[in-house]
Amino acid sequence: MSTFGTLFRVTTFGESHCAGVGCIVDGVPPLMALTEADIQPQLSRRRPGQSALTTKRDEKDLVRIMSGTEHGVTLGTPIGLTVPNEDMRPGDYGSMSDIPRPSHADYTYQYKYGTKTSSGGGRASARETIGRVAAGAIAEKFLRLRYGVEIVAWVSSIGDIEMKEDVVDTITRERVDSHPTRCPDAAVADQMTALVQECRNAEDSVGGVVSCVIRNSPVGLGEPCFDKLQATLAHAMMSIPATKGFEIGSGFRGTTQRGSAHNDMFVRKGDRLGTVTNNSGGVQGGISNGEPIVLRVAFKPPATIGKEQATVTYDGTSAVLAAKGRHDPCVVPRAIPIVEAMAALALADAALVQLSRHAAVLPFNALPPLQNVVTPLNPAKAQDPTKPADDRAHS
Amino acid sequence: MSTFGTLFRVTTFGESHCAGVGCIVDGVPPLMALTEADIQPQLSRRRPGQSALTTKRDEKDLVRIMSGTEHGVTLGTPIGLTVPNEDMRPGDYGSMSDIPRPSHADYTYQYKYGTKTSSGGGRASARETIGRVAAGAIAEKFLRLRYGVEIVAWVSSIGDIEMKEDVVDTITRERVDSHPTRCPDAAVADQMTALVQECRNAEDSVGGVVSCVIRNSPVGLGEPCFDKLQATLAHAMMSIPATKGFEIGSGFRGTTQRGSAHNDMFVRKGDRLGTVTNNSGGVQGGISNGEPIVLRVAFKPPATIGKEQATVTYDGTSAVLAAKGRHDPCVVPRAIPIVEAMAALALADAALVQLSRHAAVLPFNALPPLQNVVTPLNPAKAQDPTKPADDRAHS
Amino acid sequence: MSTFGTLFRVTTFGESHCAGVGCIVDGVPPLMALTEADIQPQLSRRRPGQSALTTKRDEKDLVRIMSGTEHGVTLGTPIGLTVPNEDMRPGDYGSMSDIPRPSHADYTYQYKYGTKTSSGGGRASARETIGRVAAGAIAEKFLRLRYGVEIVAWVSSIGDIEMKEDVVDTITRERVDSHPTRCPDAAVADQMTALVQECRNAEDSVGGVVSCVIRNSPVGLGEPCFDKLQATLAHAMMSIPATKGFEIGSGFRGTTQRGSAHNDMFVRKGDRLGTVTNNSGGVQGGISNGEPIVLRVAFKPPATIGKEQATVTYDGTSAVLAAKGRHDPCVVPRAIPIVEAMAALALADAALVQLSRHAAVLPFNALPPLQNVVTPLNPAKAQDPTKPADDRAHS
Amino acid sequence: MSTFGTLFRVTTFGESHCAGVGCIVDGVPPLMALTEADIQPQLSRRRPGQSALTTKRDEKDLVRIMSGTEHGVTLGTPIGLTVPNEDMRPGDYGSMSDIPRPSHADYTYQYKYGTKTSSGGGRASARETIGRVAAGAIAEKFLRLRYGVEIVAWVSSIGDIEMKEDVVDTITRERVDSHPTRCPDAAVADQMTALVQECRNAEDSVGGVVSCVIRNSPVGLGEPCFDKLQATLAHAMMSIPATKGFEIGSGFRGTTQRGSAHNDMFVRKGDRLGTVTNNSGGVQGGISNGEPIVLRVAFKPPATIGKEQATVTYDGTSAVLAAKGRHDPCVVPRAIPIVEAMAALALADAALVQLSRHAAVLPFNALPPLQNVVTPLNPAKAQDPTKPADDRAHS
Repeated sequence: MSTFGTLFRVTTFGESHCAGVGCIVDGVPPLMALTEADIQPQLSRRRPGQSALTTKRDEKDLVRIMSGTEHGVTLGTPIGLTVPNEDMRPGDYGSMSDIPRPSHADYTYQYKYGTKTSSGGGRASARETIGRVAAGAIAEKFLRLRYGVEIVAWVSSIGDIEMKEDVVDTITRERVDSHPTRCPDAAVADQMTALVQECRNAEDSVGGVVSCVIRNSPVGLGEPCFDKLQATLAHAMMSIPATKGFEIGSGFRGTTQRGSAHNDMFVRKGDRLGTVTNNSGGVQGGISNGEPIVLRVAFKPPATIGKEQATVTYDGTSAVLAAKGRHDPCVVPRAIPIVEAMAALALADAALVQLSRHAAVLPFNALPPLQNVVTPLNPAKAQDPTKPADDRAHS
Repeated sequence: MSTFGTLFRVTTFGESHCAGVGCIVDGVPPLMALTEADIQPQLSRRRPGQSALTTKRDEKDLVRIMSGTEHGVTLGTPIGLTVPNEDMRPGDYGSMSDIPRPSHADYTYQYKYGTKTSSGGGRASARETIGRVAAGAIAEKFLRLRYGVEIVAWVSSIGDIEMKEDVVDTITRERVDSHPTRCPDAAVADQMTALVQECRNAEDSVGGVVSCVIRNSPVGLGEPCFDKLQATLAHAMMSIPATKGFEIGSGFRGTTQRGSAHNDMFVRKGDRLGTVTNNSGGVQGGISNGEPIVLRVAFKPPATIGKEQATVTYDGTSAVLAAKGRHDPCVVPRAIPIVEAMAALALADAALVQLSRHAAVLPFNALPPLQNVVTPLNPAKAQDPTKPADDRAHS
Repeated sequence: MSTFGTLFRVTTFGESHCAGVGCIVDGVPPLMALTEADIQPQLSRRRPGQSALTTKRDEKDLVRIMSGTEHGVTLGTPIGLTVPNEDMRPGDYGSMSDIPRPSHADYTYQYKYGTKTSSGGGRASARETIGRVAAGAIAEKFLRLRYGVEIVAWVSSIGDIEMKEDVVDTITRERVDSHPTRCPDAAVADQMTALVQECRNAEDSVGGVVSCVIRNSPVGLGEPCFDKLQATLAHAMMSIPATKGFEIGSGFRGTTQRGSAHNDMFVRKGDRLGTVTNNSGGVQGGISNGEPIVLRVAFKPPATIGKEQATVTYDGTSAVLAAKGRHDPCVVPRAIPIVEAMAALALADAALVQLSRHAAVLPFNALPPLQNVVTPLNPAKAQDPTKPADDRAHS
Repeated sequence: MSTFGTLFRVTTFGESHCAGVGCIVDGVPPLMALTEADIQPQLSRRRPGQSALTTKRDEKDLVRIMSGTEHGVTLGTPIGLTVPNEDMRPGDYGSMSDIPRPSHADYTYQYKYGTKTSSGGGRASARETIGRVAAGAIAEKFLRLRYGVEIVAWVSSIGDIEMKEDVVDTITRERVDSHPTRCPDAAVADQMTALVQECRNAEDSVGGVVSCVIRNSPVGLGEPCFDKLQATLAHAMMSIPATKGFEIGSGFRGTTQRGSAHNDMFVRKGDRLGTVTNNSGGVQGGISNGEPIVLRVAFKPPATIGKEQATVTYDGTSAVLAAKGRHDPCVVPRAIPIVEAMAALALADAALVQLSRHAAVLPFNALPPLQNVVTPLNPAKAQDPTKPADDRAHS
C-alpha cells in the first residue's frame, strides 16, 4: 500500500492529474530544526526539466510543510507535506486511451482497479515519487544530525556505458551534480549524454544503474529474520518505478567468488571491528556492521517511447502505438534523489527500532531522563530561538 | 522482525541450539485439506545431509501440526508448526568463540543484541529457514488449489558455471531434483558438482544463483506504491540468509537495452491480454500481469570455511581462524525450497489482499453468500470425511 | 501513531496552530462516486460554533480532495484530504505557558516529546479529529453502498441527565440533529441544555455519554483472537480525545446478569440466524452476527475551564490557573460525527479483510472475473459520465 | 488476527482440541534472565480446576521454552512457547453440534470460517488465552526489571456484589490470591462465593468486573493520535473472550462530574509532576503521566450453561439446548492473570516504542555505546553464569 516504515513512517498520496501530491511523515523525532529549505533541494534535484536529457514537463514542485513543526522545529507529531500539481495536461495522453502502453502500468492498473486514469497508469507516475523524496529529506536530516550519516547516489551505468571507478569512500553530491547525467566520471558521462541523445533522436529510451553509498551508518541496524537490513533496503528500492534489480555489496558478481576471497576479514577500527574489504556491502547477517552500505539498483528503459510499436488495444485488436506525450528517454539521472530518499527512509526506520532495542538493554540509569537533557521543567529553553536549532537537540 | 505478511502471515522462531524451530501461519483460508504430508516434502528437500554436496549434519526435521486443523482440514485459525532440534552439538563451535567469523553474523549479532549464542550467529542459522519452508508449503498449496499456481526454483549458476537454457515454461520440481545440484541441465550440473567438490577439498566455499518461476499467477497482485509485487518479492528473497542480489525479469541485463527492444508487446491470450516477450518478468507497474513471474536470487559463498583466515578476535587481536564445524561448501542446492517458500508466502499474501480489493468492487450480488457455497445451514457436509478434502472447498 | 487500519487505512496530520489538517485514506475501493460533497456534511456537524453550546472558534473547515479521484470517481489510489486552519490565534494560550492545565495533555506531551506547542497539548487538539471525520465519511459511504450499513450516534447522557428511551432500531441523523445537544429525546435534551448553560456560566465543564448503533452490518466481521470486532471498535473509540470508557451491548450492566437472562436466543431471520434480544451488541466471539452493533463511549468533562484551579507550574511552584482561551463546556454534541467516523473506519477495515477471507474460500469459479463485471476490455464504459456514479459500481 | 504489538509482539496459536497451544514472543530484549519458572506461575493461576468455583477440566498446562534463550538468558530472538493439550474430550460437545449456543461464538465462527470445530467456537476457547498469559509473564518481567512496574488485577464485582474499598495503592497478588474468588475483601468475597455457588446449583452463570492497576509506569508511554495508551489498553482488554466493557480512571462515572471536580491538580513529586487525585487513571492526552494506571474490564456471564434454553438449530428449527460439557459458572477469578498479561503486553510494547523516541532525541553522546555497557569486546562476561542473571543487564 502507500505506507512505508514501522516507527519512522511515510504515507504518500497523489498521481499526475490531481490537485497535488504529498505525504505524511510520522515518527519524526521532535526538537529537530526543519523547514522547507531542508526538503526543497532534493525535490529540485528530482524535478523534470533540469536539462536537455530529461522530460520537458515543467513543475515548480514547491513543497509546503502543513503541520508537525513550530518555529522551525519538529514537534514529534506527523509532518504533512504538499506539492501542488501545476502543469496538468490530461489531453496529452488521450490518444493512448485505447491501447495499453507495452511494459507500462496501463494494463495492470486497469485490471487491478477496474479503472483507467487520464494518464494511463495513474499512480505509476513519476510524480508519485515526490512524496518519497520529500519524506526522505527529513529522514536524511535526522540520520545526519544524529549519526553523521552521508547518503550519496550516482549514475554508474546507462545502457552498456559503465563507470568503472570506485568512488564509494569519496563521492559527494556536488561531484554527482557536476554533470547533467549525474555520473561522476566526466569522460564516461559524456558518452552517456551522447547515448541518451541518440535514444531521444530515435524516439527510443534506455535503462541504467544507480549506485548508492550510505556512509557512517551506525552498527546494529536491521531486524532479522524477515526485516534484515538488505531486505528492507531491497523492498525500498524495488518499490521505485521501473526497477528490475537490486544488489548489496558484491551482488551477483559475488556469486562467482570463493568464500576465501569473498569473506571480509576483520580489523580493529577504533571502538569497533571493521573489515579490510567490503564485499558484504556494510551488512552481515542482515545487520549493519559499520562499513559503508553499498547498493545498486537496475532501472529498465522507460516504457513510453515515441517509436512505433506493434501491439494490441485493450480489447485485443492489433494496433500501432506511437506515444506522443512528454517522456524521458532515460530516468536514471532523475532517480538519484529517489534512491537516496528510499535509502534514508529504510535506514531511519531501522535506526529508530534499534534505538529502542539498545535503550531497552541498558542498565536503568544509563538512559538520561528525557526532561533533564532536552526539556528542563521550565521548557522555554528548549525552544530558545536565539540558538541555532541544529545545536539544540542533536549535536 | 520475525513476521512476514499482512493477511497471510508467518511468524517464525528457533535457532540452532534450542529445543526446536517452527512457526505460526496466520490467515490460512479455512476448509483447505492440510496434513503434515503437505509440508514434509519441502522440509525434506531443505534438509542437510541429502548428498555429498551438503553438510553432514543429520536432522530428521519432522514437522508437527500443533493447531489450526481438524480432521485434516484447515479451520481458518492460526496453524502452529514445530520441528524439534535433534542434533545439537554446541561444542562444535566452541573453538570459534573468541574470533568472529569473517562475513558471518557473529559480530553483528554480538553488537546488536549484546549476546553471543553457542553457534555464533544464533538466528542467522540455516535452521531458521525451516519455519519459512513449512509455512511456504501451506501458502503454495493454497495458491495451487485456488489458482493453479506452480512455483519452481532451480540452480542456474554455481561460481562461474552457468546454465544457459531457458526453462521458464517447462521446468518441474522432478526435473530439478533429478540431479543433486538441482541444476536441471545435466551437463552443466556435472560441472557444478566438480566445482563444489573442488571447493570442499580446498576447505573453501562458492556462491551461486537460484532462478525461480511462478506460473499461473493471477493478474492484479501487488499493492503500489510501496508494496509493488517486485518489492515484496525482493523483501522476501533478500531476507533469506546469504543473499546479495535480486532480479525480476530482465534484471540488470535489461538496463543495457533500448525501450523498443525491452518493451513486451501485448497480444490477446484468452480473456486477458498477454505479452509476446516477458522482459517484465510477469510484473508491470508493480502488479502481476498474468505472465510467468521470473526472478533470480544471488547467494554469496558461505562464510564459514575450513581454510585458514587471517582476521582478529572480538577484542581486536590478530588471529587465524580455521572453522571446524559442519558447513556447506555451497548452499544453493538447499536454497531451492527456501526460495520457493518465500515466493509462495509473498504471492499468497498479495493474493489475499487482492481478493479483498476484487470482492469490494463487485456488485452486491456478485459475491455468493459464504454459507450457501461452503457451509449450508447444516454445516456437517463441509466436514464430510468421505470426500477427498481437496475436492470440497477449492476445486 | 497516526495510522489506523490494515486494508482500509487512514493516516492523519495536523494540530491547532499549523497551516492545516487532513489525512490520507488508503485502500478505498475504486469506482465509487466521491466528491467533497460526500465528506463536508460530517465535517460541518463536527465544526465548532454551531450553537450556543459549543466553542466560539470559527472555522469554515472546507475539505479539499487532493488525489485519488477523477471525474468524481475513486481510482483505488490514496485519497489525500486537506482542510486549512483559518482561525489561528496562538496568543490565546500564552498566559498558560508556565502552568500545565490539570487533566489536559500539556504535561504529558511536554514530557514525551520534550517540546511544547503554542496551544499546549498540540496534537491533543480537537482539530486533530478533522482528519478522522473526513476519512470516516468515505468509509461510511463505502459501507452504505456495499452493504446498506447505517451508522447513527447520539448523546445519551450529559452529566447525570440520561436519556432512557431505546432508539437503536429507529434513530436517524435527522432526529439527532433536531436538537442542538444531539440528544433525540427533546425533553431530556432541554434539561441537558440547561445543565451545559449552567456549567458555562460557572466557567466549568461537564462530561457525557455518546451512544452509537451500526445497523445492517454484514455477518462475519472481526479477526480473532486479538482483533475481535469489539477490540478494534474499542481501540477506535478510546483513541478519541477525552474518552474514559467503552461498552458494547450490555456493557458493565451485563456483568450483573445471569447467563440465562443475558444470553441472546437464536431465531431464524431470512437466510441467517438472528437473535431475540441483543445483549451481545451485535458481536459474538469477537465477530459480527448481523444484529445491530450497539456501543457507548464515555467522555470526561473538558479539562480546560475558566474557573480557578490551584495547581503548580512546570517547575513545581504553586500557582492558580484560570484558563482564558476558547473552550467547550461540553464536547459530546460535537463528538457525534467523530464517533460515527471511528465506527465506520473500524467496520470498513474489518469488512475489507473479511471480503478477502470470504473470497478466498469460494470455489474458483464463484468469484466473477473483475474485468467482466466492472471493467470490460473496453473500459470506457466504467467511466460513463452519463450514468449516476453510485449506480455504476456498487448498486 | 493473532498478533498483538509493534516492537514487543506476541503471536498465538491453538484451540481446545488440537495438539497444543502456545505463542511466539518477538522483540523481547536480550540479556534478560528467563526460564519456565518465570512463566509458569501465571499459567497456573489461569489454569482451571483450582477451586470449587471453576471448571473441573484438568490441565497441567506446563509451558516449555522452545527457543530464544540460552543458559537461562534471553538472546533477543523470538521466544517460542508451547503448552500441550492433555485433556481433550471432543465427545463432550457432540450433543451441541446441531444447535449454536446462544451468545457463544459457535454461530459466528461457523459463518465467518465456514467450518465448525469439535468444540464449537474453536479459537473462542478459554485455552486460547494460555498464549497471552505466557507472553504477558515475559512482558511483565521486562517491565519489572527495567522500571519496577507492578501489575495487579483483582475481582471487584461478581453479579451485583461489589467491593467498595480502594486498594489501588496497596493491592498485591498475594492478597488477591488469599481468597478463591480473587476478591481481596474477604467479607465481600464470601458473598461472591455464595452467589457463584448458587449459579452453579441453578446450572446458570454470572458475570463480573476485573479491576487492574499498573504501578510505577514510566511517564510518556502511548502513541497519539490513534495509539493512545488507553486505546491500546482497551484493544488489549476487549480482545479477551467475554468482555463487554472497558474503563480507565473515572470511566463512565466520570461523565457525571464537573471539570472542576474531575480535573487532577498537579503537585511536585520528586523529579516529575504528579497529581493529587487520579481521575485520569494515569493517562492524560493518551500518554502515561506516572500515576497508577487504573482500569476496569466487564465480563459477561459465560454463555454455556446447563439450564435449558429455547433457541433454534443451525437450520432454524426450534430446539431446546441444555449444555452438558464442563464449564465455569463465573470466569472472572480465572481472568485475573489474563487481564494482567494483556496489561503487560500493551505496556511493554508502548515502553519499547517510547524508548526509541526517547533515545532518538538525546544528544549523540548521551546514549552509551551498547558494547561498553552490556558487552565488552570480550563478550564472555555477559554470559557469566556465576552471577545472578537478573543482576547482569537490567538492575
